Amino acid sequence: MASRAKAIVLLSGGLDSATTLAMASENFDCHAISFDYSQRHVSELQAASRLAQAFSAFHQIIRLDRGVMTRSALTDATIDVPVEGKDDGIPVTYVPARNTIFLAHALAVAEVQGAADIFIGVNAVDYSGYPDCRPAYIEAFEHMANLATRAGIEGRQLKIHAPLIDLSKAEIISAGQQLGVDFSMTVSCYQADDPGRACGCCDSCRLRREGFAAAGMADPTRYRR
Amino acid sequence: MASRAKAIVLLSGGLDSATTLAMASENFDCHAISFDYSQRHVSELQAASRLAQAFSAFHQIIRLDRGVMTRSALTDATIDVPVEGKDDGIPVTYVPARNTIFLAHALAVAEVQGAADIFIGVNAVDYSGYPDCRPAYIEAFEHMANLATRAGIEGRQLKIHAPLIDLSKAEIISAGQQLGVDFSMTVSCYQADDPGRACGCCDSCRLRREGFAAAGMADPTRYRR
Repeated sequence: MASRAKAIVLLSGGLDSATTLAMASENFDCHAISFDYSQRHVSELQAASRLAQAFSAFHQIIRLDRGVMTRSALTDATIDVPVEGKDDGIPVTYVPARNTIFLAHALAVAEVQGAADIFIGVNAVDYSGYPDCRPAYIEAFEHMANLATRAGIEGRQLKIHAPLIDLSKAEIISAGQQLGVDFSMTVSCYQADDPGRACGCCDSCRLRREGFAAAGMADPTRYRR
Repeated sequence: MASRAKAIVLLSGGLDSATTLAMASENFDCHAISFDYSQRHVSELQAASRLAQAFSAFHQIIRLDRGVMTRSALTDATIDVPVEGKDDGIPVTYVPARNTIFLAHALAVAEVQGAADIFIGVNAVDYSGYPDCRPAYIEAFEHMANLATRAGIEGRQLKIHAPLIDLSKAEIISAGQQLGVDFSMTVSCYQADDPGRACGCCDSCRLRREGFAAAGMADPTRYRR
């Protein structure tokens, strides 16, 4: 088998990043990275490890300082995760600068590994309304990354791939299924319990449930209720 | 005393960031952040704490995962720090994506603190040739930051201030002196020892020594030899 270029893939353990890993694995040897940042849903990290193994990707868990990405319902147990559907505006589950911190680390790993391709499973269609999931943000990060690094200086163009950005949740699920993603391994819920069972009522559960319905597929999610 | 806006200041403990903190303190209440990333010169962190105290800034030390910013002479004890002057190109003291990781964290802290101003002491004149110290990089980061965050969405423009970017080392030293920086507190050396004494021969020591000479000031640096 011919040697393939290496890509860095952000892997949260959710449905979107699992599909992104499956897509990246079509053309690259993947180095998956996940973050331990005191997120409530730590079962995501276990899901990420299983997914990396399923796609033969190297898996690196990066620990972040717990005093930085605070004041979000995903990192602060005193802020409730909303279960009443999506409001207008940026929801309380928004984690300050999360994708920028994640991509900044991916950039460092890419430099160390000699990779020029970074994959992130952001989506701007069926999503929670976070600012750092929009196409203009991804383009701006890529431009900055090429000025920030050795690769950019030496003429290797770094590319931030966001292959899901224009897909609906149903399209993401269909694409993942075709590429062999076992969605029962993935955890999307903002407040999953330790065994990875979903609450069924947060914004992320709602988007996931509607996605399986729209894709006409059985939903393999394990719900607590 | 009227309440002032808050700024986030990246504070390494070196001469440049000390002067930057002094400049920011003129107009802002400062929240200084430093990073523990297994840098060789950990005495910088102690210097940073003393400097923050001297300028009445809140000081937060952020711990970074040691497995990310590797393959640099500043983080890997098996790579020697060059002592023979500056080569062409990017030196081995370059730390992959360092300023991007630092600024990404500053962005998160700014969001949590409700600050719209971030200060970084990068300099593109008397510097080691790192890609992430150039004006185009800082502009690109600022553009990305405004797309990444709640502040940008809600119409508060985030500003990345790099007040030293066009100054020579001598001009930085003169400016810092006028603002009351005690340079004997600062540690610039890439391989300072635990008490903070400088090697006198690395690139950073060379730039610092030449800066004091050009500014016509006594050099308060404590050298090992």
